[in-house]
Amino acid sequence: MIRNEQLGAGLWVFGRTVDRYAAGGYGPAVRTLQAIERAGQVGGMANLDINYPFAEPDLPPEKVFEAMERQGLRAAAVSPNVFNSDFPRGSFTSPDPRDRLRAIDIGKRCAEIAHEWGADYVKFWTGQDGFDYPFQADYAELWDLSIRGIEEVARSDPQMKFGIEYKQREPRTHIIFSTAARTLVGIMEMGVDNVGIVYDMGHSLAARETPADVIQLLHRHGKLLGVELNDNWHDWDDDMTVGSVNLIETLEYIYALRRIDWQGPLLLDQFPYREDPMEAVRTSFRTMRALDRLLDKLDLNALAE
Amino acid sequence: MIRNEQLGAGLWVFGRTVDRYAAGGYGPAVRTLQAIERAGQVGGMANLDINYPFAEPDLPPEKVFEAMERQGLRAAAVSPNVFNSDFPRGSFTSPDPRDRLRAIDIGKRCAEIAHEWGADYVKFWTGQDGFDYPFQADYAELWDLSIRGIEEVARSDPQMKFGIEYKQREPRTHIIFSTAARTLVGIMEMGVDNVGIVYDMGHSLAARETPADVIQLLHRHGKLLGVELNDNWHDWDDDMTVGSVNLIETLEYIYALRRIDWQGPLLLDQFPYREDPMEAVRTSFRTMRALDRLLDKLDLNALAE
Amino acid sequence: MIRNEQLGAGLWVFGRTVDRYAAGGYGPAVRTLQAIERAGQVGGMANLDINYPFAEPDLPPEKVFEAMERQGLRAAAVSPNVFNSDFPRGSFTSPDPRDRLRAIDIGKRCAEIAHEWGADYVKFWTGQDGFDYPFQADYAELWDLSIRGIEEVARSDPQMKFGIEYKQREPRTHIIFSTAARTLVGIMEMGVDNVGIVYDMGHSLAARETPADVIQLLHRHGKLLGVELNDNWHDWDDDMTVGSVNLIETLEYIYALRRIDWQGPLLLDQFPYREDPMEAVRTSFRTMRALDRLLDKLDLNALAE
Amino acid sequence: MIRNEQLGAGLWVFGRTVDRYAAGGYGPAVRTLQAIERAGQVGGMANLDINYPFAEPDLPPEKVFEAMERQGLRAAAVSPNVFNSDFPRGSFTSPDPRDRLRAIDIGKRCAEIAHEWGADYVKFWTGQDGFDYPFQADYAELWDLSIRGIEEVARSDPQMKFGIEYKQREPRTHIIFSTAARTLVGIMEMGVDNVGIVYDMGHSLAARETPADVIQLLHRHGKLLGVELNDNWHDWDDDMTVGSVNLIETLEYIYALRRIDWQGPLLLDQFPYREDPMEAVRTSFRTMRALDRLLDKLDLNALAE
Repeated sequence: MIRNEQLGAGLWVFGRTVDRYAAGGYGPAVRTLQAIERAGQVGGMANLDINYPFAEPDLPPEKVFEAMERQGLRAAAVSPNVFNSDFPRGSFTSPDPRDRLRAIDIGKRCAEIAHEWGADYVKFWTGQDGFDYPFQADYAELWDLSIRGIEEVARSDPQMKFGIEYKQREPRTHIIFSTAARTLVGIMEMGVDNVGIVYDMGHSLAARETPADVIQLLHRHGKLLGVELNDNWHDWDDDMTVGSVNLIETLEYIYALRRIDWQGPLLLDQFPYREDPMEAVRTSFRTMRALDRLLDKLDLNALAE
Repeated sequence: MIRNEQLGAGLWVFGRTVDRYAAGGYGPAVRTLQAIERAGQVGGMANLDINYPFAEPDLPPEKVFEAMERQGLRAAAVSPNVFNSDFPRGSFTSPDPRDRLRAIDIGKRCAEIAHEWGADYVKFWTGQDGFDYPFQADYAELWDLSIRGIEEVARSDPQMKFGIEYKQREPRTHIIFSTAARTLVGIMEMGVDNVGIVYDMGHSLAARETPADVIQLLHRHGKLLGVELNDNWHDWDDDMTVGSVNLIETLEYIYALRRIDWQGPLLLDQFPYREDPMEAVRTSFRTMRALDRLLDKLDLNALAE
Repeated sequence: MIRNEQLGAGLWVFGRTVDRYAAGGYGPAVRTLQAIERAGQVGGMANLDINYPFAEPDLPPEKVFEAMERQGLRAAAVSPNVFNSDFPRGSFTSPDPRDRLRAIDIGKRCAEIAHEWGADYVKFWTGQDGFDYPFQADYAELWDLSIRGIEEVARSDPQMKFGIEYKQREPRTHIIFSTAARTLVGIMEMGVDNVGIVYDMGHSLAARETPADVIQLLHRHGKLLGVELNDNWHDWDDDMTVGSVNLIETLEYIYALRRIDWQGPLLLDQFPYREDPMEAVRTSFRTMRALDRLLDKLDLNALAE
Repeated sequence: MIRNEQLGAGLWVFGRTVDRYAAGGYGPAVRTLQAIERAGQVGGMANLDINYPFAEPDLPPEKVFEAMERQGLRAAAVSPNVFNSDFPRGSFTSPDPRDRLRAIDIGKRCAEIAHEWGADYVKFWTGQDGFDYPFQADYAELWDLSIRGIEEVARSDPQMKFGIEYKQREPRTHIIFSTAARTLVGIMEMGVDNVGIVYDMGHSLAARETPADVIQLLHRHGKLLGVELNDNWHDWDDDMTVGSVNLIETLEYIYALRRIDWQGPLLLDQFPYREDPMEAVRTSFRTMRALDRLLDKLDLNALAE
């Protein structure tokens, strides 16, 4: 059964959304501490996933921690922001070694903050590490750099857990860690124990994976480090409210988490461009609870047949 | 044969690109007049498609015209910017009648500017007119408002030509004018003579259309008002350089334009996030010319078999 | 509310399924009259859609009619089988005029049978009319032949109604009547009153359409002649049981039919390769009724918001 | 440089094609020995991939071998036909243990034949091992059975090499070995040395992979056992002639094979439904050679940038 202590969301859900046409953003700017207040207004949730560096360069991590405490929230994850315009040529795979060093440094700094905050893991989503055009990339080198970069951060702090969140495309037309199995192969190549996978349902659907199937595969390999929920129209990472399109696959996903007795955080990754973020988050939680109760009632053995 | 006077691009190609993660933008901000200078640096092109209102509220259209003249450029199209965050709930289909009026006013103002500049047409791309979620929209009402809004602008200025550029998704998960045929049906419902279609190859590919086939259909109905070129990975509007992925379909598209003896502008719609825009545009033009020369050499009758 | 008299299915649902690897077929061969008996065993349904010519060249249509009567069934539609290997180069668009004549003759013969049987309409699904490769087709000619062929059959029998069922691909990689709007444009070009569209939810989903939206568009133009139900994984015509994947879109589709007060047949188009066909059909009907009852309970005005 | 001795095709390319609507097949039936004769007529090719059991139950493998010898052809691969209607519920993953035994027996028998014929490998394409509906399968069990079945065959004959050809869908809506990386993970779980991957470009494209990238990944892991070529429209396994749609990705694929110095067979997997198979094969070979010559001319170092 889903517990309040499991529920949570990425902090960006409460920030200002932008798209490539609405460069000015939908709605006014939202500062980091303000976004944490908004998260506190949701009610019935406990966890956050926070990108670092923060939008405000001078904001000390302790201030962020205190703001979370005031709202009864904690950080489940600290996520290195190496996917914005500071890394247009890639982070761990940039042809410029200074970019790669910067990415590694941010990763290490996130691990320190995660220790200070008592977060569960540091989450890498390396959206700029990939390619856009045919004949643009040396694929072997991209793969190698992707693995070596994350491996280096992971080896520097064996007490911390590190997760990779894969995604097939956007912002690059092709991202290196694109599917669950590719990322699993990459982790095997790293040869370290403290790297796992953070599973995002929307990225998985857009990559034509079957959520419940991927959950069992990652669990089988002991590499399921975190899970995120949202929904989309099957071919793009629309970051919509949970179950709003793919209700049956969402039910099966929650059932799969139940079968492996998942007790960790259940985090939302939504972009409520045109919706009130607090309400969008509450709607997702309501749907998740409703599906969870439905599973209580269903004869799961009959379902298995 | 492609002539220099036909070549051109959207002015946004020379501006700063943004995506939802790189809200700060790739590279420094570029003012409108600066973008025109960049367009002038390309060389060998003559046409621009310019969004209005400009990013700078106080910039007079005459200044823009003069800047174009200085660069030996002209406006082929003026495009009402009703697709940014000023219209988060839709432009012609917003539930708020004031939004709809604003959109209509911008459309009319664009027609005035188009007359002043000697532009060929006003181009509507109504990317905010659609829906995101199931059960969110009254489809009949959305359709009706889409048609009535553009019809009203078109009737207000029978001397001007108006184009609709269709696209299936983004920024909305579903846009009303989604395919060539749907837009054609909408134009038939309008019952006006001065509305046609501006065909964008990338939007067409992402909607699983066949470019050369759509060209003949729109030509057959006398509704092909403008054409745009670019490329993508078949399932999203990546706005890449011409022919970089779908070389054969691009060749067939240019062949289709030749068969209908298209003499109008050939405009690029690219988003060179990580590339130099001037070079990205030149690369597209080189490919277009190379394909054009190839068509000169090919035995087109043999091809037809 | 859905009534038993509305329910029905394509007769092929009860036949032997085949795929390109299982050329021998899944299960034993099923004769036409046997398939009708199977349809009768479903219970609670009234309508069939029957392909003609039958698999058995000597089977008289009267025998088929009698077999339907014995099972308490009627033909809602007679569908010219011009999509099998008798028309590998196309039916109405074959480069060989004899193929085109054969297709037209089969269409006319189907109209006669439809009159004899009291069927509602003759349904054209021209799956072989299209192309497979770039540069293979003269698109203008394909379009013209598609329209002229069906127009000729329709004009030959003004008392009969004719429907076009569109589909984007398979067996051809590209089929001419690919989307609702394209087919609507084609029907407008025909200039006849007795041709409409038979809407298949699976074809529509695979073409990235929104079912409820298409229903309103076709209704608005008075061209919704018949409807079919099934489901798939969004990118192919999998012909699965209703609501098994896209439950919410199916609910919205049934809601859209309710809004236009659709009282005609609700026909299944399924390919139960590995399932018992009678049970597969009953499962679909159960889901349809359950969704229909759910609509009774929902506050539809609230939904509309 | 591509040599004649590398060229080849699946024997099915020369047989009768069938689809689910054209159950009678496109063209007359073609016996196994007749198909070999047709392969011989192509000219300039040396290799075949042959499914076993043959269509004719009494045909002895020696006769097939002799027929190949007469045409100057050899078997590169023997492929267990466990993907037809003899295995509607799955082969290695069937819930019926007798089906699983049958599949294993066919696999072992194919290894014997491969030894007799001097073939390079036995190729498993387990198209029936998967699922169609949500909540239909126990994914952990499907995965386990898939791996254990192939592992058992591989362990029974350590002198033979075994390949897995992955594919995302068709005939099942979901196939277990769906992508290169998933199959690689499965092979790692097997813990045997004599199982690799047979890479099919069409399956890879339809799974949204980048061919040249997958080639390097499989090579890096020493698991690239065989390669197949063809083309499609990106979202389905259309089995078209090489380079007919995705010319640039095909060029990059051949370039990737060159970079790893691939000297093994280059096999076609085509379904020429409406074309002459010998001519369709020759067309593919011509394109492959032309692209190969183009690579000789290109400055590959410049390309790499």
